[in-house]
Amino acid sequence: MFRTGGPAAPDARSPGTAGRFGHYPGVVSEQTASETDVRACAARGRDAAAELAPLSRAAKDAALRAMADALDGATDDVLAANARDVARGREAGLGDGLLDRLTLTVDRVAAMAQGLRDVAQLADPVGEVVRGYSQPNGLEIRQVRVPFGVVAMIYEARPNVTVDAAGLAIKSGNAALLRGSASARESNTALVDVLSRAAEKAGLPRDAVQLVPGTDRSSVLHLLRARGLVDLVIPRGGAGLIDHVVQNATVPVIETGVGNVHVYVDAAADLDVAERIVVNAKASRVSVCNAAETLLVHRAVADAFVPRIVAALQAADVVVHGDDAFAACAGVLPAGDDDWGREYLSLDIAARVVDDIDEALAHIRRWSSGHTEAIVTGDLAASRHFVARVDSAAVMVNASTRFTDGGEFGFGAEIGISTQKLHARGPMGLTELTSTKWVVTGDGHTR
Amino acid sequence: MFRTGGPAAPDARSPGTAGRFGHYPGVVSEQTASETDVRACAARGRDAAAELAPLSRAAKDAALRAMADALDGATDDVLAANARDVARGREAGLGDGLLDRLTLTVDRVAAMAQGLRDVAQLADPVGEVVRGYSQPNGLEIRQVRVPFGVVAMIYEARPNVTVDAAGLAIKSGNAALLRGSASARESNTALVDVLSRAAEKAGLPRDAVQLVPGTDRSSVLHLLRARGLVDLVIPRGGAGLIDHVVQNATVPVIETGVGNVHVYVDAAADLDVAERIVVNAKASRVSVCNAAETLLVHRAVADAFVPRIVAALQAADVVVHGDDAFAACAGVLPAGDDDWGREYLSLDIAARVVDDIDEALAHIRRWSSGHTEAIVTGDLAASRHFVARVDSAAVMVNASTRFTDGGEFGFGAEIGISTQKLHARGPMGLTELTSTKWVVTGDGHTR
Repeated sequence: MFRTGGPAAPDARSPGTAGRFGHYPGVVSEQTASETDVRACAARGRDAAAELAPLSRAAKDAALRAMADALDGATDDVLAANARDVARGREAGLGDGLLDRLTLTVDRVAAMAQGLRDVAQLADPVGEVVRGYSQPNGLEIRQVRVPFGVVAMIYEARPNVTVDAAGLAIKSGNAALLRGSASARESNTALVDVLSRAAEKAGLPRDAVQLVPGTDRSSVLHLLRARGLVDLVIPRGGAGLIDHVVQNATVPVIETGVGNVHVYVDAAADLDVAERIVVNAKASRVSVCNAAETLLVHRAVADAFVPRIVAALQAADVVVHGDDAFAACAGVLPAGDDDWGREYLSLDIAARVVDDIDEALAHIRRWSSGHTEAIVTGDLAASRHFVARVDSAAVMVNASTRFTDGGEFGFGAEIGISTQKLHARGPMGLTELTSTKWVVTGDGHTR
Repeated sequence: MFRTGGPAAPDARSPGTAGRFGHYPGVVSEQTASETDVRACAARGRDAAAELAPLSRAAKDAALRAMADALDGATDDVLAANARDVARGREAGLGDGLLDRLTLTVDRVAAMAQGLRDVAQLADPVGEVVRGYSQPNGLEIRQVRVPFGVVAMIYEARPNVTVDAAGLAIKSGNAALLRGSASARESNTALVDVLSRAAEKAGLPRDAVQLVPGTDRSSVLHLLRARGLVDLVIPRGGAGLIDHVVQNATVPVIETGVGNVHVYVDAAADLDVAERIVVNAKASRVSVCNAAETLLVHRAVADAFVPRIVAALQAADVVVHGDDAFAACAGVLPAGDDDWGREYLSLDIAARVVDDIDEALAHIRRWSSGHTEAIVTGDLAASRHFVARVDSAAVMVNASTRFTDGGEFGFGAEIGISTQKLHARGPMGLTELTSTKWVVTGDGHTR
């Protein structure tokens, strides 16, 4: 989820069973937008980005606070627009979960405004000197953090993402192109109107924050193809949306959030710790991408651990889908490739006994989505072996997979969790919304 | 170019007028490859990558030295294979420039072997802790540099790239998929055969270095679509190749090398310094991506500088394509949008007088490819203004644009120059061939 200091909407990070891009059954009519319109919007963002890049932290923070105040002041208008979205959604037969995610309240609007103030408190990533040195010929070489320029976010349902994304983009000196879903159209329009007016009044370019025209899939396509105008697209949502973006984008993309997450309980595990971690990783919140989906248990501890963890999981209402060793326990369903390959996002877990740590690693290599894997062990060599060989964004040693999270990592704000290896991997904070440039200073140096 | 310590092939970085992807006129027949074959090759790379990732620096360096020795020992075989490529190329009507780039000699093979030994001397980027801290709850959080996994390189003509790319990939713990051009097929086959055998003998997986099957465009397409098998593709070549890759890739890509490079001579420039830098940036080597293509001169110094720089450029055999102010000088051709937008890669330069620094910045924003821009000025405020507002991989202050180069930056080896903002921007060394992962260690921590 986009998260700042404020309280989060329920189940905000992952769509669970809800988010299937462009397929809300019978949802409100979608609006189309021409390629010309979308590119014109991106080009305005590009101009705004050129003005945003050299701004001081003070100027950006002042704008963020002004946007927060304006949002507080416009609560009634935002709630009225949101009520129209909710009414249309209810008519169109949106499910209760989606309606809850769509619905704003006085408290949720206040939390969004507070989120902007919290972002203002964070350090400015722009201007940081990442590397700096002098060459033998006297040239001074500095690699300096700079904004990307135009950052587009494509997301589903939740209107709070609109505000969080706008705040994080501005703090990192980027122009934001926001592409929410059709079902939140009026809410998003009202929010962006408030934010962009307030930003302009505070001295920022008016087009620092824009809603991308159109709510159908073709307008997304135009955005994904706007090479030279869009520096980065971040899709936030279910696997369907992310796959659509990756398949069609010619602009740079950061993939987020699909988590087929494994916990491996080693021969040398403390079984009390293992039980606590497995139950926490699976059951503390099932609809998020850092929740565990598969449990792997070393054969040496299977007799002691399998019945115990099945009982503990079942006590937490989790359905276990297991191999033969697990299926010997009452209530365990048989597991197959469908289970190993699946991100349940529900009170289900796949479970298997492995002969050794390398079989666990092979299973993970075969099935993982590269998000997070955990080992529970008291053995240092096993831990080092596992950490060196797991090829995922995060590896947990004797800790729940639920800790793969910008907040838990101390980032202060999170834009999403990258599951790709290019540029950003794992939780993304403000730093990951920046690029760098090289500044080389001489006294008339030539080659 | 790929460059290590060894001497470079002539005009290695940029294709000049030569490299038009897949369009060598009448070149030797191309070989097709099925999607199954290409994906099988990538899958073998994936398995090899899993073995390469945990290797120690010592193991990788020993393999690099063994590969260098094997290459030295196989010089005759490599030259024989290369002679067949050159003969076929001559029959097919390849131009002299291309034939020179294709041709290997005893010295060039020795330089490639030395390049591998030089890479062995460089520090290992893998294992570096990029960030590391403890959270209040006692969790230890470390962001550690790791290999990408499978890195594919697509390049034109020059067989030395095959060896350089293999060496850099192995040093950074990656499996290499090499996709050279049809005209160098036999040379590349011979080289990869020597290298992969030597690597295997030194304890590396045999598939650490592979030639991608096929030499036609469809085999590139299969590679670009091998999601989940290829972690990164780096195209090295002309704009046509790079555009093809970006338009078709669903795997992550780093764009390299197109440079429409500007030099801005400010009102406060030392005109001696300005002349030296402009002539060096344009004429010291015209076929490279860091060569200047457009000169912008502040109106305040135009009367003094324009005739002088035109004379100096013409003395270096450069044809000036200028606006009205420049066209007043003898021998200057009129310039238009075609000139502003063009990467000449030849003894030509576009030139224009601007009213002030902001007009220079606007021109750069409109026409630059985002590679390198330079300002010549003695005024600190002008320098800060320019540096803050230029959105390119490198900004030079009183230094030639030719310094945008991994060697000049002290990287020891260069894989290319990225002109995108995601992951790597500017010269790429070994560090840019790595990703990171987060390692989180606790004592049974749960949320």
